[in-house]
Amino acid sequence: MPFNYTRTIRFQDTDAAGVVYFANVLAICHEAYEESLAASGINLKLFFSNPEVAIPIVHTSVDFFRPMFCGDKVTILITPRQINEEKFEIAYQINLVEQTSAKAITKHVCINPISRIKRVLPGEIIRWLSHWNDDDTPLL
Amino acid sequence: MPFNYTRTIRFQDTDAAGVVYFANVLAICHEAYEESLAASGINLKLFFSNPEVAIPIVHTSVDFFRPMFCGDKVTILITPRQINEEKFEIAYQINLVEQTSAKAITKHVCINPISRIKRVLPGEIIRWLSHWNDDDTPLL
Amino acid sequence: MPFNYTRTIRFQDTDAAGVVYFANVLAICHEAYEESLAASGINLKLFFSNPEVAIPIVHTSVDFFRPMFCGDKVTILITPRQINEEKFEIAYQINLVEQTSAKAITKHVCINPISRIKRVLPGEIIRWLSHWNDDDTPLL
Amino acid sequence: MPFNYTRTIRFQDTDAAGVVYFANVLAICHEAYEESLAASGINLKLFFSNPEVAIPIVHTSVDFFRPMFCGDKVTILITPRQINEEKFEIAYQINLVEQTSAKAITKHVCINPISRIKRVLPGEIIRWLSHWNDDDTPLL
Repeated sequence: MPFNYTRTIRFQDTDAAGVVYFANVLAICHEAYEESLAASGINLKLFFSNPEVAIPIVHTSVDFFRPMFCGDKVTILITPRQINEEKFEIAYQINLVEQTSAKAITKHVCINPISRIKRVLPGEIIRWLSHWNDDDTPLL
Repeated sequence: MPFNYTRTIRFQDTDAAGVVYFANVLAICHEAYEESLAASGINLKLFFSNPEVAIPIVHTSVDFFRPMFCGDKVTILITPRQINEEKFEIAYQINLVEQTSAKAITKHVCINPISRIKRVLPGEIIRWLSHWNDDDTPLL
Repeated sequence: MPFNYTRTIRFQDTDAAGVVYFANVLAICHEAYEESLAASGINLKLFFSNPEVAIPIVHTSVDFFRPMFCGDKVTILITPRQINEEKFEIAYQINLVEQTSAKAITKHVCINPISRIKRVLPGEIIRWLSHWNDDDTPLL
Repeated sequence: MPFNYTRTIRFQDTDAAGVVYFANVLAICHEAYEESLAASGINLKLFFSNPEVAIPIVHTSVDFFRPMFCGDKVTILITPRQINEEKFEIAYQINLVEQTSAKAITKHVCINPISRIKRVLPGEIIRWLSHWNDDDTPLL
């Protein structure tokens, strides 16, 4: 079951072309990711300041189909998927009414934030993955 | 009756000190302003791209009392007040649970965005002011 | 000849993990693009508010290799390349001392900003492409 | 002797009104502050991640006089001034050619970032204050 997050486009998200600045689309996707973490019971403050586990983004890509304007109420559909013991990816689809404005992907790898050495994903992320995964057959 | 807006602090709002970056507090206040405009029936897309009327901010101030962290659910209480035919100000109070994290003020002046000459506030802003004004006796 | 842009990482670019927020890497790349436009004689104010020509980004991807910290002086090497009469792409490499922190790509398509219909790239962009192109044999 | 910092306005700094988004003016001021710290020999990475000393902003105000556009090359003149053993303030003037676009103030208080209890300003900040102070007679 994918996770849905609804977000109003803010004046701050726009640039002088009158539409959402391209890099801000990724920040909007990350908001949906944060909201999905919270919805599966993860404490965001502890999660993002954990001195032993960090899960930075190592790759991202975005395809932009339609401009988004201040006041637009977009829905972000997010589908996480485990890649291996240390990695997952998230697919995002940003929709406005019946049309897709953008699609994005982020790939995340779990590390120790001090040594920056890879480590296995923590249990709460495994649960989050199974919570919002679209698929009955995990890749692992 | 002041307007209330609830907003989760996002990872993007924070800086390397682990708390909300000071200037982002104003962006959060502006979101509350946008939401109050929408709540009184104003179309945000048309409002912020109107070629004949713009209402830029000419002054702002903020007092910061407590740091805000990723995941915090803050409530922004906003109280607009008309100053004269061309100007209004908004007082913002950002609260977390029972404590105030920050207080801010923005002052706005109505202009023609091409000539940048002052003009009277449009009717929809006068209605918005009366909608969320805390006071029975307007300053005007 | 690729274009070089040097940029200090700012406190604002960072997040609570202590390093540059992933989406801000794209904003830093876009700064390098703007600087390369200016360096080939393009007036940025007119370019980004031209009512007849806009060149929005339709695709982007980033690979993140190393975290960037506040105060780091990174160099962004940018190499634009024409794809066809209406499109170009830019490859970005962000280096810190001798190591690559991130690599990114943006693809841009030229449109009329009102109708959003594709049109040929303007002459100043063709000159910019030939100015900073790494290659003697354009793709076109 | 005040400190001067020159900065090109970026597309990212603007909003759909075509000019710099109001809160971004403060981020531009903070960049000038960071550059003045670096210019007096302070290591920004260590300064902004020091586990024993943090100097958060407790108050800010801005007056906006003229809009700033993408491509504008503004100069930020900054004048720091010590208030007492634990506090300083910075006055900022943002100029474009011969005209002032904005004036701002930030007030900073030195704390232990864990306990958030006030402490005296570190030696490197005292030296920075004397380096860029406009005045021969410190307030202290």
